[in-house]
Amino acid sequence: MRLTPKNELEYRYRKLQLEMAGAGLDAVIMLQNADLFYFTGTVQTGCLYVPASGDPVYLVRRDFLRARMESGLAQVIPFSSLSDLPGIMAGQGHPVPKRIGLELDVLPVNLYRKYLSLYPDAHLLDASPLIRRVRMIKSHYEIHILQDAADQADKVYRRAAQVIREGMSELELAAELEQLSRLEGHQGYLRMRAFNGELACGQILAGPDSAAPACTNTPLGGMGLTPAFGHGASYNRIGRNEPIVVDFASCFDGYMVDQTRIFAIGGLSDRLRRGYDDMLRIEALMMELAERRPTWGSIYDACLALAGELGYAENFMGGAGSQVPFIGHGIGIEIDEYPFIARGFHEERLEPGMVFAFEPKLVFAGEGAVGIEDTFYLTEQGLKRLTFSCRELVVL
Amino acid sequence: MRLTPKNELEYRYRKLQLEMAGAGLDAVIMLQNADLFYFTGTVQTGCLYVPASGDPVYLVRRDFLRARMESGLAQVIPFSSLSDLPGIMAGQGHPVPKRIGLELDVLPVNLYRKYLSLYPDAHLLDASPLIRRVRMIKSHYEIHILQDAADQADKVYRRAAQVIREGMSELELAAELEQLSRLEGHQGYLRMRAFNGELACGQILAGPDSAAPACTNTPLGGMGLTPAFGHGASYNRIGRNEPIVVDFASCFDGYMVDQTRIFAIGGLSDRLRRGYDDMLRIEALMMELAERRPTWGSIYDACLALAGELGYAENFMGGAGSQVPFIGHGIGIEIDEYPFIARGFHEERLEPGMVFAFEPKLVFAGEGAVGIEDTFYLTEQGLKRLTFSCRELVVL
Repeated sequence: MRLTPKNELEYRYRKLQLEMAGAGLDAVIMLQNADLFYFTGTVQTGCLYVPASGDPVYLVRRDFLRARMESGLAQVIPFSSLSDLPGIMAGQGHPVPKRIGLELDVLPVNLYRKYLSLYPDAHLLDASPLIRRVRMIKSHYEIHILQDAADQADKVYRRAAQVIREGMSELELAAELEQLSRLEGHQGYLRMRAFNGELACGQILAGPDSAAPACTNTPLGGMGLTPAFGHGASYNRIGRNEPIVVDFASCFDGYMVDQTRIFAIGGLSDRLRRGYDDMLRIEALMMELAERRPTWGSIYDACLALAGELGYAENFMGGAGSQVPFIGHGIGIEIDEYPFIARGFHEERLEPGMVFAFEPKLVFAGEGAVGIEDTFYLTEQGLKRLTFSCRELVVL
Repeated sequence: MRLTPKNELEYRYRKLQLEMAGAGLDAVIMLQNADLFYFTGTVQTGCLYVPASGDPVYLVRRDFLRARMESGLAQVIPFSSLSDLPGIMAGQGHPVPKRIGLELDVLPVNLYRKYLSLYPDAHLLDASPLIRRVRMIKSHYEIHILQDAADQADKVYRRAAQVIREGMSELELAAELEQLSRLEGHQGYLRMRAFNGELACGQILAGPDSAAPACTNTPLGGMGLTPAFGHGASYNRIGRNEPIVVDFASCFDGYMVDQTRIFAIGGLSDRLRRGYDDMLRIEALMMELAERRPTWGSIYDACLALAGELGYAENFMGGAGSQVPFIGHGIGIEIDEYPFIARGFHEERLEPGMVFAFEPKLVFAGEGAVGIEDTFYLTEQGLKRLTFSCRELVVL
């Protein structure tokens, strides 16, 4: 079992305290699982109180012993109810906070109102941009875990190449790859921060189905098995000479990488084959630009412009009417972390330590989707690729 | 593809409008996926506006064509931003609502503030108890889907009996059962309403590991694969003469059933075997009581009392210090629906149409967990069992 080291946790909350100083916050209180894992090293029900200075206090409802065992924080305290929070913190010698940061992007209103009643005189502010900025810059420790996730992704890719058969359903392929990923350590659940963010492990799509418009903010959707969950693999059977999209989020020790590869039995039409190669060109353009640490939005703009020049104005990042305004997204404990390689974002620059998935894709209605996705990280020495499976179109 | 019938949807929103009249709401606006599926028949990004009387309007950002195809609602309108909501509804002839119900139990604060700015003069109230009461009473249509989910659960149970081997890891067993359930139509994602509700498909636990305290409000936890997701199956290997817990949430067309069965290679100690039989007695007591339509809390109290008489004060529904105050939970599109067979709840009665999982379980630290879980529904003619796998301890 890999436990987050004490000094790693300390580095993280010190960075948050720097952000808090800039925002004039007396305390940040976190409840959400992904944030708890990042700042405590475990995910036990409770809340983490980070003061403006000094050590954070992890109040744990359950399970206290596991929190004590798994968390590298010095102060882990059992508690039974959020109502006890102000009293316990006062007892620990912390002054009553006047400006409190909360995860207002994910915290439900009813829970927020509970805080309002606990701290009636405080200003409750949104700490989520601060938290996300801290989490955006990955440490070497995190990169090592992401490399393990990339190993899993390569196994998924290689298994796909072994098992894809004509007449197999998208679902059969998805189930096979999901089983493999679980055996390789996938936790069976993917975290997404956005409200209503619901993910199965990947989008395994074939032929015209892969061009079905998504019900949410993603370039590809798929039909899914049911209107209750209308995305991802369906019962559609894989045919010859059509694109088979294996877009899979691998996950190890809580960290994800995203990788997409295209397979085809027999081959693809000239248009789709050229489209695939052109998406490699867009990936190459991004890699060249990224080394100069440009703004997130300028990468998006340049890649969109190239896609337009190549003739894909109506196909890039979704079919006509369903195009999404991004080509890449930060990834780590959640699949929608900073940075966003997206329209706008002309102030924020790429910085060493950032990890993001980049996924130029083309959608041809009635025909299918092609494209590539890899997970990258920027180092002081330049851009590195975390996912490493062979990037050629796989013709079976 | 099973589409929710128009009259079924109409029945649902008429029931909600009755609740709204009782609460004096002019409109309920829903955003959350589970509620959208229940009231529209699909899950396309957008919002559903239910007026106090008249037909609801489903405003869809994406994908409009799929919403049009999958939803039985008459009014499905494309829109691009929540900001357009008041204008569109005014254009449809709806008066500006003064009292608006929102899903305040799940709606994040930042989204709520968006509504505040859209309707600055309105009172924004919590509609979630109303929505949950409507969803609590299942229709015959829903029961049929739940029966399909129960068929899947039985296949999972039978596969477990076929594949369990000494030395197999919990993870290997879980991956096998997950793959089977996917092939049988499981969407690969389970919905839970509670904040931070994160579920893998089940808890496949063996031996002392099955007695590990949970990090959240469940009787069993398991160790999981990583502190990042510290529940469910681990790498622990299945041994002889220890309980093997197969607690699995099957899911079909968006609806779940919960079923738990216990397996053992060789057999179990007298204490565990007797414990298993005693949990069947508690299930029998619940079944006898439920026919009289008692309050939710009185079922809990009676079962807890029997568990105490049988000598399980320190083992029932969790180990000492980790016991949960419930024995059953409503289930359907989400795993934590009404009713709660739990401490308190002395006003709310069982009613025909309610569906709930009932899961009396015992935890013996250092030894393991035993118990039973079935999903039931109450009809006018009495209590019926939806899950139907053989309820004997399976000795392999």
